[in-house]
Amino acid sequence: MSNHASGAATHIRPATPADIPLILAFIRALAEYEREPDAVSATEERLLQHGFGPNPYFHCLIAEHNGRAVGFALYFFNYSTWLGAPGLYLEDLFVHPDCRGLGIGKALLKHIAAIALQKGCPRLQWEVLDWNTPAIDFYKAMGAEFLDEWRNVRVTGAALARLAAPESGAAE
Amino acid sequence: MSNHASGAATHIRPATPADIPLILAFIRALAEYEREPDAVSATEERLLQHGFGPNPYFHCLIAEHNGRAVGFALYFFNYSTWLGAPGLYLEDLFVHPDCRGLGIGKALLKHIAAIALQKGCPRLQWEVLDWNTPAIDFYKAMGAEFLDEWRNVRVTGAALARLAAPESGAAE
Repeated sequence: MSNHASGAATHIRPATPADIPLILAFIRALAEYEREPDAVSATEERLLQHGFGPNPYFHCLIAEHNGRAVGFALYFFNYSTWLGAPGLYLEDLFVHPDCRGLGIGKALLKHIAAIALQKGCPRLQWEVLDWNTPAIDFYKAMGAEFLDEWRNVRVTGAALARLAAPESGAAE
Repeated sequence: MSNHASGAATHIRPATPADIPLILAFIRALAEYEREPDAVSATEERLLQHGFGPNPYFHCLIAEHNGRAVGFALYFFNYSTWLGAPGLYLEDLFVHPDCRGLGIGKALLKHIAAIALQKGCPRLQWEVLDWNTPAIDFYKAMGAEFLDEWRNVRVTGAALARLAAPESGAAE
């Protein structure tokens, strides 16, 4: 990402089912950048089912530069009970390494911010890896806050199955 | 929350629109516990609109103990692009201070975990304040992971409006 103006050569559009192979390739490239190249078990079938049905779990934008698809942003809505309003959560933002420094990431982020306001979301949120200093500096420059007093907790796998199981001896 | 069995006296049910005043009271009580008593600007009207329409932004469970509503859990679905699967995100979990130590929080969490599995979510996620040591210890004991390498970023207010505005001088 950069501070350059995106210019007329960058065009951002909603993803369609025809983009799914591309989206999966972007997801894998982003996982590699995030040092987790083997973490992706998503499939084209599941992305189609989850993102393009009647009540999709996510929404996706494609960035084209000079007619070539070079980046994507994937988001969904969360909810703030304090504000009584939905928020926009940006799960993934990625620009092909060949095309960095052209303002494409910033153009995607600006587009996402406009969608947030249009959908009545007073907050746009995402996460960044603590070693990703260039990204952190870029976000700070645009006025982002870092909510470092909150720790992210996750239960998965066997621990989730144990938690979901009825308590032995409980009447209910 | 405690490790006690919840027993037959605890009953968990989906919230209905009639519960909205109660839900808002719980949201306010939780904000007070989280040392942000003035952070709640949600209204009953917005909770009704956002949680009980055709495509709700959130879902809510009420815990009753001996017939009295004493706690709630509010959640929505996020999406993991690595797994290609939805996840369950627990936004709020609260039990009235009078009724702590009876296993009601744990019963809510177990109920939520069962919903996660039933909905095909391999992950249950939430956040905890870094000073809330009793909660952190409880989550660790149940096998939760802490994703401390990820920092939460938020853009809101004037910074969000600036980000959403078209770039001056850009052709697009």
